[in-house]
Order: sequence, then C-alpha cells, then structure tokens
Amino acid sequence: MLDDLTVYLSGEIHSDWRARIREGVAAAGLDVTLLAPVTDHATSDTAGVAILGPEADDFWRDHKGAKLNAIRTRTQIERADVVVVRFGDKYRQWNAAFDAGYAAALGTPVITLHDAALGHALKEVDAAALAVAETPEQVVRLLAYVVKGEL
Amino acid sequence: MLDDLTVYLSGEIHSDWRARIREGVAAAGLDVTLLAPVTDHATSDTAGVAILGPEADDFWRDHKGAKLNAIRTRTQIERADVVVVRFGDKYRQWNAAFDAGYAAALGTPVITLHDAALGHALKEVDAAALAVAETPEQVVRLLAYVVKGEL
Amino acid sequence: MLDDLTVYLSGEIHSDWRARIREGVAAAGLDVTLLAPVTDHATSDTAGVAILGPEADDFWRDHKGAKLNAIRTRTQIERADVVVVRFGDKYRQWNAAFDAGYAAALGTPVITLHDAALGHALKEVDAAALAVAETPEQVVRLLAYVVKGEL
Amino acid sequence: MLDDLTVYLSGEIHSDWRARIREGVAAAGLDVTLLAPVTDHATSDTAGVAILGPEADDFWRDHKGAKLNAIRTRTQIERADVVVVRFGDKYRQWNAAFDAGYAAALGTPVITLHDAALGHALKEVDAAALAVAETPEQVVRLLAYVVKGEL
Amino acid sequence: MLDDLTVYLSGEIHSDWRARIREGVAAAGLDVTLLAPVTDHATSDTAGVAILGPEADDFWRDHKGAKLNAIRTRTQIERADVVVVRFGDKYRQWNAAFDAGYAAALGTPVITLHDAALGHALKEVDAAALAVAETPEQVVRLLAYVVKGEL
Amino acid sequence: MLDDLTVYLSGEIHSDWRARIREGVAAAGLDVTLLAPVTDHATSDTAGVAILGPEADDFWRDHKGAKLNAIRTRTQIERADVVVVRFGDKYRQWNAAFDAGYAAALGTPVITLHDAALGHALKEVDAAALAVAETPEQVVRLLAYVVKGEL
Amino acid sequence: MLDDLTVYLSGEIHSDWRARIREGVAAAGLDVTLLAPVTDHATSDTAGVAILGPEADDFWRDHKGAKLNAIRTRTQIERADVVVVRFGDKYRQWNAAFDAGYAAALGTPVITLHDAALGHALKEVDAAALAVAETPEQVVRLLAYVVKGEL
Amino acid sequence: MLDDLTVYLSGEIHSDWRARIREGVAAAGLDVTLLAPVTDHATSDTAGVAILGPEADDFWRDHKGAKLNAIRTRTQIERADVVVVRFGDKYRQWNAAFDAGYAAALGTPVITLHDAALGHALKEVDAAALAVAETPEQVVRLLAYVVKGEL
Repeated sequence: MLDDLTVYLSGEIHSDWRARIREGVAAAGLDVTLLAPVTDHATSDTAGVAILGPEADDFWRDHKGAKLNAIRTRTQIERADVVVVRFGDKYRQWNAAFDAGYAAALGTPVITLHDAALGHALKEVDAAALAVAETPEQVVRLLAYVVKGEL
Repeated sequence: MLDDLTVYLSGEIHSDWRARIREGVAAAGLDVTLLAPVTDHATSDTAGVAILGPEADDFWRDHKGAKLNAIRTRTQIERADVVVVRFGDKYRQWNAAFDAGYAAALGTPVITLHDAALGHALKEVDAAALAVAETPEQVVRLLAYVVKGEL
Repeated sequence: MLDDLTVYLSGEIHSDWRARIREGVAAAGLDVTLLAPVTDHATSDTAGVAILGPEADDFWRDHKGAKLNAIRTRTQIERADVVVVRFGDKYRQWNAAFDAGYAAALGTPVITLHDAALGHALKEVDAAALAVAETPEQVVRLLAYVVKGEL
Repeated sequence: MLDDLTVYLSGEIHSDWRARIREGVAAAGLDVTLLAPVTDHATSDTAGVAILGPEADDFWRDHKGAKLNAIRTRTQIERADVVVVRFGDKYRQWNAAFDAGYAAALGTPVITLHDAALGHALKEVDAAALAVAETPEQVVRLLAYVVKGEL
Repeated sequence: MLDDLTVYLSGEIHSDWRARIREGVAAAGLDVTLLAPVTDHATSDTAGVAILGPEADDFWRDHKGAKLNAIRTRTQIERADVVVVRFGDKYRQWNAAFDAGYAAALGTPVITLHDAALGHALKEVDAAALAVAETPEQVVRLLAYVVKGEL
Repeated sequence: MLDDLTVYLSGEIHSDWRARIREGVAAAGLDVTLLAPVTDHATSDTAGVAILGPEADDFWRDHKGAKLNAIRTRTQIERADVVVVRFGDKYRQWNAAFDAGYAAALGTPVITLHDAALGHALKEVDAAALAVAETPEQVVRLLAYVVKGEL
Repeated sequence: MLDDLTVYLSGEIHSDWRARIREGVAAAGLDVTLLAPVTDHATSDTAGVAILGPEADDFWRDHKGAKLNAIRTRTQIERADVVVVRFGDKYRQWNAAFDAGYAAALGTPVITLHDAALGHALKEVDAAALAVAETPEQVVRLLAYVVKGEL
Repeated sequence: MLDDLTVYLSGEIHSDWRARIREGVAAAGLDVTLLAPVTDHATSDTAGVAILGPEADDFWRDHKGAKLNAIRTRTQIERADVVVVRFGDKYRQWNAAFDAGYAAALGTPVITLHDAALGHALKEVDAAALAVAETPEQVVRLLAYVVKGEL
C-alpha cells in the first residue's frame, strides 16, 4: 500500500487554505507530510537582511531574501511527491507559477487550486496540472484518494 | 543483504492476481511492499467527477478521472524497485502497456505476467521486460529470489 | 523561428494514416522529419531470425525480432521532438501504448490519434497526451501550427 | 568561438519587445536564433478548438488550446540555450513565470525583462535569473556579449 | 556525520572475499550494508528455468537466468553508495566489468579488488575506479575510512 | 513541516568554523545532520598510501589519497540537501571551489562562507550560491530559518 | 526517415571485424558513422607516457594511458546511437564489458558480437543487449535494417 | 571516425596558453572548436554594470558581472565534449576549480593544465581529471590523439 505522501503547498499566503488542508488531512487521519514556504510575509521579506546584513538598495534587499527563501523552497519541492499550487484573486503570485513550472519540469505531479474565474488566465498552468481544484476541501479529498485509493 | 523491495502491480483489475501475489508474499514472509492502482473499477472511473465536479462530456469526465488516477500511479511507479505488469485476455489494457513503457524509460526492471497465448501480441513489451511470467505464483517466486537470493 | 521538427509516428500499421500525414506535411511545405517503425508486418516479424538465425520456439523468435526492432524504435523516440501514437480499432497495439508511456517518461510531447469510440479505453494514454486527434489531417494541422505558429 | 545561440522569448505579447530584440540582433549581425510562442492572441486562444473541434465548456476550450500551445513551447524551451522572460505591467502573465520555473529546473540560463517597479513582485523569479534587464536593448547587448564576448 | 554506507560487492564468486569483508566490517563495528548478487553458482544458473520453465536451447536458458539475476543486480547497484568489483585470476568475469561500467556511468564510486598481476588487463576499469585494492582487508579499511574518517 | 536537513560542510580545515556551526545547530535544537570531509590534514593526506600501499612519486601519493577522499566527499555531496563552502584567507582551497561547482551542477543549494575581503576573488562562486555568509553564526541562523521557517 | 546512425565499435582489436563492418556498411551505401577506440595496441598503450611524460611504475604508466584513452572512448559512447561490443576468444577484454555496462546504464542500445561458444560466459552482457550477433556481416545487416527498415 | 571536438578552455587569463593551444590546433589541422570565457579582464569585470546599470556596492557590481559571465560560461561547458582547466601560479582562480567541479558533475572529461609545483594543492581537482598536463603543447597533442587516434 502507498500509505504516505509528501506534499508541498505553494502559493498564496493571505488566506487560510493551508490551515484548511492541514485540518482536513488530520481529520482524515492521512499520513501526509505537508510542506510549505515561510508564510509570514514580514518574516519572509526580512529574513535575507536580518541574517546576512542590511542592503541600501531595495532590489538587492529583495534579492537576498528571495534567494534565502529559495533554499527552503527548492529543498521542499525536490522532496515532494505532489505539489499543490494556490492562486488567489489578489497579487500576482508569480512565485506560485514559477514553482508550478519548476515542479512540472521535474515531472512531479501538480495540483492547482483557484477559483473558476481565474481559469482563463491560468490555462497554461492548469494544462500542466493533473488536477484543478477550487476548494481546499477538494484537495483534501484528492490527497485522501491518492493515498488510500478510496472515495 | 537486500531485504526489502517495493513492487508496483500494474494492469488487469478483473481477476485475483494481485490477491494471489499478496498472499504468496505474505506466506513467504517477504519484506515486499506491494503498491497498486485503484482496482475498484467504479471508484476509479468516478473519482475525477466525484471530487472535482461533474462533466457533461464523457471525454472530459474520463480525462479528469484518468489524470487524478495518474497522480497515484506515477507516484507509485517512481517509488517502485520493480514493476509487474499484468495483461489478461479481456479488454485492451492500454494503460498497462503505457505503465510498462513508462517504467522501461525510467530504467526500472519490468516483469510481465500473461498467458502464453498473448506472447505474440505482447512481444515488444516482453522484449523490454527482465522476466515474463505466466502465473502469480511465479511472480511470488521471482520476488522471493530477488529479495532472498535463494530458490 | 522554430522551423523544423522531428516527429515519430508510432502504432497502427494496417491503415494509411502515415501516408496521409506524409502527404499533408509535404503539401504544406513543412520542414518536418517523419520517423516510423518498420511498417511492413512480415518484414518486422521476420527480421530477427532472418538476420540472426532461426529459432525453434515461437516465443524466442518473436523476442529476437522485437528486440531488433527496438533498436530502431528507441533511437527514433530519443530523436523525436514529438511522438504521434495511432490506435486503430483492430488488434491490441500494446506496443503503441508502450511507446506512449516511454515518450511520456522522457518528457517528450505525445499526440494520440484514434476514433472517439476508443476514448474510454484510452483515457490513461490520452491523459498523458498534449493533443488527442481523430484524423491524420488534424495531426498535419497540429504539426503545421507547432512549426509555423499559424492556423 | 561560441558563435551561435538559441534564445526563447517567453512572456508578454502585448508590446513590441520581441520585434525590438529581433531588430537589435539583426543590426548587430549576431547568429542568434530567436524562438517565440504564438504571439497572436486570437490565434493562440483559438488553435485548440479550431484544429481539434469545438468545446461547449470554456474551461476545456482553454485547456485544449493551452496543451496544443505547450507542444510548441516545450519544444522551444528544450532547444534554447537561454530563455528571456518578459513581464509587462498588465495582465498576470502566469505562463511567463511558469516558463521561467521550467527553464530554471532544466538548468537553462534565464534572463528576466521588466520595469524596475515590478521588482518586488518578481523577486523570486529574478532570484533564479542570471540577468535582470529593463529594456529590450539591454537584452540585445547581453546576447551580443554572450555570443561575442565583447562590449 | 556520515555513519552508514550501502556497498554492492560485485564479481568473483569462487573465493571467500565477500565473507572476509563481511567479517572485517562486523569486527570494525561499521554501519555498512553489504549487498551481493546470488553467489551460489548453481542457484544463479538455474533460477531462470526453475521459476519460469525449462528451455531446450542453452542460450535462452542462460538468457532467462541472466535477466532474472539482473533484477536483483540492478536494484542493488542503484541503491549502492559504493560498488566494489572483484576480479579473480580464473574465469573471464565479464559481468564484473559490466557492473563496473554500469556503476561508473551512474556516477557511483567504484573500488576494484584484484591482484597486481591483473593490473595491465584491468587498466581501463581501474582508470574509472576511485581506489584499487589487492586484499579484502584493504577494502574493509577503505570502507572504515569512508564511514568514520579515521585511519 | 520540513524538519530535518542534511548539510555538507566543505572547505577550510584550519579554523574552527565547523565546530561553531555544530555547536550553534545543537544549541538551537535543529534536526540538521552535518557532514564533513576528513578534517585532520595528516590523516587525509596519508590515507591513500596508508591503506593501499606506498608510492615513490609524490604525485601518485597525492592522487591515491585524493581519490580515496573523493569516495567520502562525493557520497556526502550526493546526500546533502545543502552544501556550505568555506573559504579562508590562507591556502588556495581549490577543492572547496571544486565542491561548489559540483554541487551547483547537481542543482543542490550552495551557501558560501568567507570574509568580505575575498568577495571579488570569489565572485563566480558567490554568483552560483543562494546565500553568502561571513560568519558561522550566520550559517546557523540560515539553517535554522530553512528548517523552521522562523527568524 | 531515419537515415543516419552513429555506431561505436567497442572491444577486440586483434581481428579484422571493424574493417569488415566498415566495408559492409560502405558497400550497402549506409549513412552510418563508425566510431572506434584507438586500435593500434602499441599506440594505445604508449599514448599516456608519450604525451604526458614517462612513469617508473607500470601501474601508473597504464593508468595514465587508460585515462587518456577514456577521453576518446567516453566522448564516442556519449555520441553513439548504438554500441557494438565485440568479444574474441583471446584475452580478457574487460574494457569491452565495461563499455557495454556503461552504454547500458546510459540507455543506449547494445549489440554484442561473439562466437556462440562464449555465450555462457557472456550471458549477463548478452542479457543487456538488444541483439547478439556472431559475425560482422550480421552486424552490417542489423545496421542496414535499423537505418533503412528493410531486409 | 570521431573527427570533431568541442573544447572549453577554462581558467587563467594572464598568460598566452589559449593562444598557444589555438595555434597548435590550427597547425595540426584539427577540427576542434575552442570555446573560452571572456579573457579581457576589464571587459569581463565591467560587463555587468556596463550593460545593466551601475551599482554603488562592489559586491553587487561583481555579482551582476559574474552572473552575466555565467550565461556564457555555462552555455559553453554544456556544449563542450572536453573541458581544459588551466591554473597559473598567481591569483586564486577559484572560478577555474568551480568549472572543473561543474564539468565533473556533468560527466564531461576534464584535462587540467598546471605546473608540477601546484600538484599537491590541486590534488583533488587532478583526481577528477582524465589527464594532467604541464604545457599547452601537451594539451594540443592530447586533443590530436583524442580526435585522430594517432601519436
């Protein structure tokens, strides 16, 4: 039996979708390890300069932080059996689409999670996904099905 | 000592071959993890629309389901040390041959399992396999030999 | 400009679909190299024993031939930018599905070509394809679009 | 001498940046092959249903088209020595970020092209790039430098 | 600390070199998993036909057996951190050299083990090895050094 | 949660930077496995001839030792999620830069650790790194951030 | 049409088998590029010390030469679509078996060429080959079939 | 016949070694394409800021330039059949050792070129090389041997 799964939850950090998946997975008693980027926006933005020293220029400030976060992100994507990528209706979330492309090139199954209204804008990303979900609860059911093979 | 093995059992879902391998492996006390696709036909066909919403068009209904099942299948093939592919005498079982090709391209050892009568039709698949068995009991003996190195 | 493409035409050998694609590609003036397995059934089945010596046992006769043909097939799949896989309504064509799985694992784009009636039986293969066509003429239009970027 | 380069120009289709790079490359006499997705919006959106038949549901209409375009896109990214990804100030351009992630995972050098104002939103993508340019003319100079090794 | 290692012991089956390495590793208290092919000559030669049915032709009898043994061998080489390849002064041991080539192509470190007298004949294999040992005791010391970093 | 990490500490062996990282990691209670080359200079230089026999020529003496050490080094780099490469102000430490190039080609995240004064000389190596630290304490904070996602 | 093929001819250097394949290929008018190691024994053995300076110790003399020859061999194996490996009845030809293992691990089709009498000793190598030939003329016919698809 | 070769010349830019190899290769009439990084120190250091805009901070000035140069370097290393890495007696040349590590991880044959006096410091790099030369003329003879198979 396949009975465990490692899943990376990429994308939107301004809604509670990760918590809802986490709760759903726990409630269903699944042996699913959920990985995630740093979801506290201030921490994520500050980490580079906080640890490695200040930058006068905003571009390099962001650059330092983004690279540091990439150590965490890449390690997690490499470990994941499945990558779930969430797109919300605010912000551009290019990093989410970047992660989807990265996972697709590695041959790792991708699940996208977004409102139907974003479908046209996300058609290329959805075309590379093995499932397109609209709610975190659907993702939980998907993961349960993948792990247990039952509806 | 090699003492464990992960084996994916691909193909036919209308006979008891997986159960017989499972029993044989248990009886022989082998540390072999047996993975399998969803073998309940109705569940497998329904999963896509049951979780992700209905489709008016049969093609897309099947498409949704097949992709969802592929998350499970690919994860299992990637984890498998050995892939056993079973062809029965009914249905076309193109997905079984697809899995065999997928495993072969990954360099994962393939064992085919089918009646001698199917030999000509399966010659290209058998040519890519490291063993061609006719009964589940032979597969059990093969796995025992691979794991324990004894007859 | 992308202006050339190498395409492997896998599968059915009992209809004129390859010729129709060849003619269509020539008529459209596309710089597309079309590769194919040996499509003369007798030649393909006989080649192994004709070159490497006779076999008393049919299984090994087929085995010799299938492996020899695999030298040609694998070389062509490895070279192909795109693999078109045709399924007809006769025979089991497991080698076609095997090639589709092999190409999918390599990350090579797959186009399937079959009647709508085979859709349910081929849903796992179609799920791994980037296009599902019903006629050779559609494949020609697809290739023209891929190469020239115009309808 | 490195004297040729294949470059894929991904992203925004609503400004003249590709034409400006094309002209700059021609004016500089560089042996650079410039590849691009289908940049005519209507053609790109319509291709799937125009070739493979109509869809009642917008999601599948887009899906068909996006997959067909992916045949072209993936073939080009695989061939490219360098991928340039352009982000404009309109639309979400998730496909551009997806391509950047895909190229990064393949180990192909990425150059991003966008206004400084988008820097914060694109920090993760820029962090994976080997150069961040603001104008098409800078990209031409970059390509000239890469090919000829001179300023 | 690196504190475990998986080592595949390939080659000669007519002397006690594997036992001596096993004893040495145990005596040194190393956390080293030693893998090996089936070293009972009769078992190894018979396994194919014993499990999968008799063959009239010696070539196919050997072929069946060799492929079955390859399931075990490849699985073990893929798992190994290090491959030790032993060449004795009798027999041709082409399978040992084959395993060395296979491991080298995978980028897995190879240690060869043979008498100095075989050095000229083995120069190409030794050239691909990271260590050339003459006694099993040297191999034990090598493995201890690799695992513990001490002499 | 990502809660463990394997980190290879490459480079300088003449200062206490590894010990300081080890202590910091322990103090922070991180589940980080720290791997390292043999850091006792005499042991590392002597191992080859001590185990495999003396060499008259210094070049081959070094060669034997360097290859033996490479068994350990490569195994560790292959296992590492992250590679930290330290450059001190003495010696040329070409092996450190070699390890950085090796890790970069594998796609493994690299962190460099050196004084700001070495920045110009190390610019190509730093350009391939995801973080450039000046003190072991910064590396500890980096690892804590990667593992726990908190500052 | 597949109309060209690159073939590496590995193994025995003491008979005229390469010349016979060369003549056969030329007579058949095949667009087949035949690659080969240095087949002049003295040249091959001397090259290392002749170019890079003398060695007092025979082991290192051989080592230098074998590594230099490996630059040529590996480049050719990497380029080859097919590798033909010839085993004669004299000498141990471990380098031939090494090349076969190397090619097999790369997924490159292998053809072995040897007398039937060597079949048992070569069973593991033959098991990894897609064709087992006994004469150079058979190899020519095989290559003609692979390239032209006709008997 | 192997009759062409692509060679990347990495490392030292302060002596005439590339020119001497270029002349030797031309004089010998070899079909060898020689690739190189930008060897004009000022150009190489300035390129980043000259094309992409000035930087106040030296670290980022260097960073921009080093990344830009990496586009050229990586493209060339990926194309090379063989990488020659030159170490002079001045400067630290960490980028040369980085390139050697990068090429080694890709499985590309490496030739090092340095004075015997640097042998101890370069032992790890030399251990990963297939040839260690002391003069550009030796490199020319090596390349001639690899391409033509004659001394």
